[in-house]
Amino acid sequence: MISQDSIVALATPSGAGAIAVIRISGDDAIAIGHSVFRSVKNKDLRIQKTHTLHLGHIVDDTKTLDEVLVSIFKGPNSYTGENTIEISCHGSTYIQQQIIQLLLRKGCRMANAGEFTLRAFLNGKLDLSQAEAVADLISSDNEASHQIAMQQMRGGFSNEIAKLREELLNFASLIELELDFAEEDVEFADRTQFHDLLNRIEFVLKRLIDSFAVGNVIKNGIPVAIVGEPNVGKSTLLNALLNEERAIVSEIAGTTRDTIEDELVIGGIGFRFIDTAGIRETEDVVESIGIRKTFEKIEQAQVVIYLLDSSLQFADGSLQMNQIEIEKIKNQFPLKPLIIVGNKSDLLSENEADTLKSEIHNLNLISAKENISVDELKNQLLSFVNTGALRNNETIVTNTRHYDSLLKALDEIQKVKYGLETNLSSDLMALDIKEALYQFGMITGQVTNDELLGNIFANFCIGK
Amino acid sequence: MISQDSIVALATPSGAGAIAVIRISGDDAIAIGHSVFRSVKNKDLRIQKTHTLHLGHIVDDTKTLDEVLVSIFKGPNSYTGENTIEISCHGSTYIQQQIIQLLLRKGCRMANAGEFTLRAFLNGKLDLSQAEAVADLISSDNEASHQIAMQQMRGGFSNEIAKLREELLNFASLIELELDFAEEDVEFADRTQFHDLLNRIEFVLKRLIDSFAVGNVIKNGIPVAIVGEPNVGKSTLLNALLNEERAIVSEIAGTTRDTIEDELVIGGIGFRFIDTAGIRETEDVVESIGIRKTFEKIEQAQVVIYLLDSSLQFADGSLQMNQIEIEKIKNQFPLKPLIIVGNKSDLLSENEADTLKSEIHNLNLISAKENISVDELKNQLLSFVNTGALRNNETIVTNTRHYDSLLKALDEIQKVKYGLETNLSSDLMALDIKEALYQFGMITGQVTNDELLGNIFANFCIGK
Repeated sequence: MISQDSIVALATPSGAGAIAVIRISGDDAIAIGHSVFRSVKNKDLRIQKTHTLHLGHIVDDTKTLDEVLVSIFKGPNSYTGENTIEISCHGSTYIQQQIIQLLLRKGCRMANAGEFTLRAFLNGKLDLSQAEAVADLISSDNEASHQIAMQQMRGGFSNEIAKLREELLNFASLIELELDFAEEDVEFADRTQFHDLLNRIEFVLKRLIDSFAVGNVIKNGIPVAIVGEPNVGKSTLLNALLNEERAIVSEIAGTTRDTIEDELVIGGIGFRFIDTAGIRETEDVVESIGIRKTFEKIEQAQVVIYLLDSSLQFADGSLQMNQIEIEKIKNQFPLKPLIIVGNKSDLLSENEADTLKSEIHNLNLISAKENISVDELKNQLLSFVNTGALRNNETIVTNTRHYDSLLKALDEIQKVKYGLETNLSSDLMALDIKEALYQFGMITGQVTNDELLGNIFANFCIGK
Repeated sequence: MISQDSIVALATPSGAGAIAVIRISGDDAIAIGHSVFRSVKNKDLRIQKTHTLHLGHIVDDTKTLDEVLVSIFKGPNSYTGENTIEISCHGSTYIQQQIIQLLLRKGCRMANAGEFTLRAFLNGKLDLSQAEAVADLISSDNEASHQIAMQQMRGGFSNEIAKLREELLNFASLIELELDFAEEDVEFADRTQFHDLLNRIEFVLKRLIDSFAVGNVIKNGIPVAIVGEPNVGKSTLLNALLNEERAIVSEIAGTTRDTIEDELVIGGIGFRFIDTAGIRETEDVVESIGIRKTFEKIEQAQVVIYLLDSSLQFADGSLQMNQIEIEKIKNQFPLKPLIIVGNKSDLLSENEADTLKSEIHNLNLISAKENISVDELKNQLLSFVNTGALRNNETIVTNTRHYDSLLKALDEIQKVKYGLETNLSSDLMALDIKEALYQFGMITGQVTNDELLGNIFANFCIGK
């Protein structure tokens, strides 16, 4: 299954920059590198030590393409486990292309998406869940998702699964042994111990399965809808939230605004804000398609912020809004946690503010414009995320594939447990145990097939 | 003048990719790297050899930020000439930011644009024209501009200037010596040899100055306007040119279409195509502002392609277009090389094609749609570029600053020559020589000032 041909790809983001890195991996990687490299010190790349750097030029026949630094990694001491070189060249797109095309002519082929990591997996440098964590790590954009990916890449999740699998495997082999001696009706596997183990596995699996809810939220961000009539200050609120949290990002050139427009990180957790412009017409044309679309969007939200203009509530001198109105609003979003926020508190007298607060329960009075009480609102958003597991450094499942295998494994374990309690014959129990072991193996990659690997690594970027 | 503080920047393009490289340079670069690095083999970065690579983790107190490879370069054996480390981390924007922020807390400061290269210049690793070539190399997007930047970076241009400067300096010191013995009326400098030298310098300077025209065109691309009435096939022609030449680019993911939409490389030379949609109304509202704008755009073009629909010329059975009409068109672009192209030749009978060609001199009959004779058109475009110097690997000046200094140096050299021919006194001649030497020094950086350096390096990207 292991391909030995040499693959090449650009490992850094495409586009112009100070430098770019081109990576080659395969049996002939160093020899191919040598064939296009002229060391400034006349060094022969093929006889250099692993983990060394060499200055020189990439030459195409008589034409010099660039001055570069070449890193050498000798298998198995490399990311892929194969011979690997990395060419650090000037970050011109033209130069990158020229060098890659030269390497293709010299016997490399373009790497497929994730093929470097696939080879690392096939060569036993990583298990499958660790390999998957590499992609998560690259796409992590906040502290929580980064921390989970890091823990998974360092083997936290795999270790937990592998330990359970090993214990189960022990019992499975004892049960299998019983089958060989079926006629003699012996029990090698201690049923009480086995029952304890199954309980333990069931407990861990349930915890892991439960962690997926928070894991999923952390990986994809928590969808929050800000709704309210026009001019209550929805955009101002979003800006107030955005400006503070994202200011630090601007230190890095090129982090464009448009990608974070509706996303922000609060306390290390990503929140995705959903545009709900259409809500203003609710009372007029409730049944119209436009409004239905808005409510479909709100459906996707995990939290709804309902924004009022608190300064308008005293337009006629007396309070317009009351708890009954609020209940009407709440009824529009029966299944969602709702945060009622009164904006423009800076326009209220102290007296008016007090009246509002006493009339409407759990009202958050803020001024997005003057940045008053915006932090309190953030804390309230955070309170919807159960970050307990995160704080305790517990294993959190973020991958749908893992979640699916865990559910199946739990199902099998419960079958085994039921079988044990009802004195099911060993041969039938062995089948269920096998299926559970299979699901564990699917997570760590002890059981794989080409289609599974293809699906996993197709989601990687090329060059990784 | 040399700052010794440690600077940090992202050296690879921003955005997500398989890996990203963060570069630190300065006296404390390795020590700072050591303070945030935990080697998997418990190695102390500070005592490792130069040009070695080390696997480990970047840690912020107890939190692991990423698994990374660290490259060590000890001054003066580094790009900047200072101690340098490069951290090759996973290409997540979040991780890049976290590591850079950690390094800032540990005593680095953010590098200014081009500051790594500025330090390389200040530490004598590059002269100024070589440093400028680094920026040109990164922005080079075709073979010709790449080749010129490469030649300049490897010192071709500097060497030529430095040699002239040295010879001139020799004579200057002899002339200065004469000043010391002014009373005795001796001549240390052989006037015939000096005259020969001045002629030689003048010749070289003129050649370099002349090369700027082609150099400028190569660096910035040759502006070409495609004009013609609607539906003659302007876009089809552009696509026919683009598709062939740019297909190879698509091998690299992320090379977005929009940046090359109007630019293409023919025979290694960049051509920039200028949109001239407005030309259709010429005969109706000649004086309108819109048309004037189109003609302003055509003004920027170095070559104009006038595209006709050749199939329409026989709409009434007999030829519509004739040489007189063509002359009218030519008169619209009196100062530009004009290529008259009859498109849609696939719709003509052989007879009609012959008639057209004999009626209209120098007509290029093509079919952009069927890709007939498009190559011939390309060759004609190329013929407008004098690529002789490029082929002969001569030094070509592309930098306006160098061009300016060369013009001034030529002026001074001609003054010196005139002085020599008219027996000008040595002291006055010495002043002109000094000025010429100053201009040479400006090019290579032997003479600089903060403002000049500031202007040059401000155009670099951060991280280089």
